Amino acid sequence: MPEIPIVKNIMDVNDQLAASVRNQLDSAGVLAFNLMASPGAGKTSVLMRTVDALKSTLRLAALDGDIATVDVEKIARTGIAVELINTGGNCHLDANMVSRALPGFNLTEFDLLLVENVGNLICPAAFELGTHYNIVIASVAEGDDKPYKYPAMFRGADVLLLNKIDMLRYEDFNVDYFRHGVDVLNPGLTFFPLSAKTGEGFDAWLDWIRVQVAAYRAGGGDLA
Amino acid sequence: MPEIPIVKNIMDVNDQLAASVRNQLDSAGVLAFNLMASPGAGKTSVLMRTVDALKSTLRLAALDGDIATVDVEKIARTGIAVELINTGGNCHLDANMVSRALPGFNLTEFDLLLVENVGNLICPAAFELGTHYNIVIASVAEGDDKPYKYPAMFRGADVLLLNKIDMLRYEDFNVDYFRHGVDVLNPGLTFFPLSAKTGEGFDAWLDWIRVQVAAYRAGGGDLA
Repeated sequence: MPEIPIVKNIMDVNDQLAASVRNQLDSAGVLAFNLMASPGAGKTSVLMRTVDALKSTLRLAALDGDIATVDVEKIARTGIAVELINTGGNCHLDANMVSRALPGFNLTEFDLLLVENVGNLICPAAFELGTHYNIVIASVAEGDDKPYKYPAMFRGADVLLLNKIDMLRYEDFNVDYFRHGVDVLNPGLTFFPLSAKTGEGFDAWLDWIRVQVAAYRAGGGDLA
Repeated sequence: MPEIPIVKNIMDVNDQLAASVRNQLDSAGVLAFNLMASPGAGKTSVLMRTVDALKSTLRLAALDGDIATVDVEKIARTGIAVELINTGGNCHLDANMVSRALPGFNLTEFDLLLVENVGNLICPAAFELGTHYNIVIASVAEGDDKPYKYPAMFRGADVLLLNKIDMLRYEDFNVDYFRHGVDVLNPGLTFFPLSAKTGEGFDAWLDWIRVQVAAYRAGGGDLA
């Protein structure tokens, strides 16, 4: 099976670059999130509502990973600093792409970097970027069976957002079944049901971010 | 850039295996579809409603590609022959996986093989499986910008289903904007808006399948 050593080498190199990215972030005191989700789960909508709510009190930057350039223009309209990573058709970001994009920012000017990964519930889970938290966004519209079908993504999450809860009244989505699937893979995962459309549930998510940024600052920019 | 020849070799091998799969299908007179979509767009629901509507008049088989084993049990309940391809975490089917799964069927007993690819709007577009038609399933719940953001998938489609049209009244989905994005990439693409939940729009899709199976038979099992 000759392909296994090649894959192993790629992962080793990625992990080294992720460590380098983390080092740059921590040196500058920037907390960073890796936002991952299926196409259409609402990564950009969640990011934009989050930015609008926090940009007056936190210094925000965004890195938009995509195979086309639709979302970056939307994010730029929020007025925060944003850089695009066009993956050239690749199904995920990797640490090398993030490393090459970071010089686009003067990192010391920011508190929080939001990295929007490529819309994909499989590939991004395998590549550390050097960010501090993996934020997975599921949506009511995708169905309640996603944790059972895409276990690696939910297993690797540090925080789970369930978006589009305003659609619960129209969809056959059993929240208990969804939660059970998540609990088996990732017990005690921090979970925020919310709607980027109506704002329902957003306050708890925003509070969580504020607490993390404060804790990160208090720890001198280095999370254990 | 040493990785480029490796990727090229993989694609060449895949294309050769896809040609071999096509040959086996045509020798047995089995028309085959490759169903591709995002997680949660409704591949399995569309497949199951299609099977229920056609199984009394066509001899159907299904190949379920997945990284976990949830859907194959659902499909088995329809009573048709079904084989699972567990991709071991891989984000797409390839022709080798299909080739290894085909011996699970006595192909001469079937008219139509429905291959359900892994839930992913990027990777599956790059791998020919040897099937006759690429059926892409988008859904109203994913948003109307998907053709603009995942162009390769829509460019490679032979038929496009827009699922969950029963949700049009609740979602901000502009059908004209969606159609325009598709038309730019793939002018004249065969398009069926439908709902696997309510059955709305299904008759046109089912009629299209019946016509293709008849044409395939009339042509002696070989599509030009």
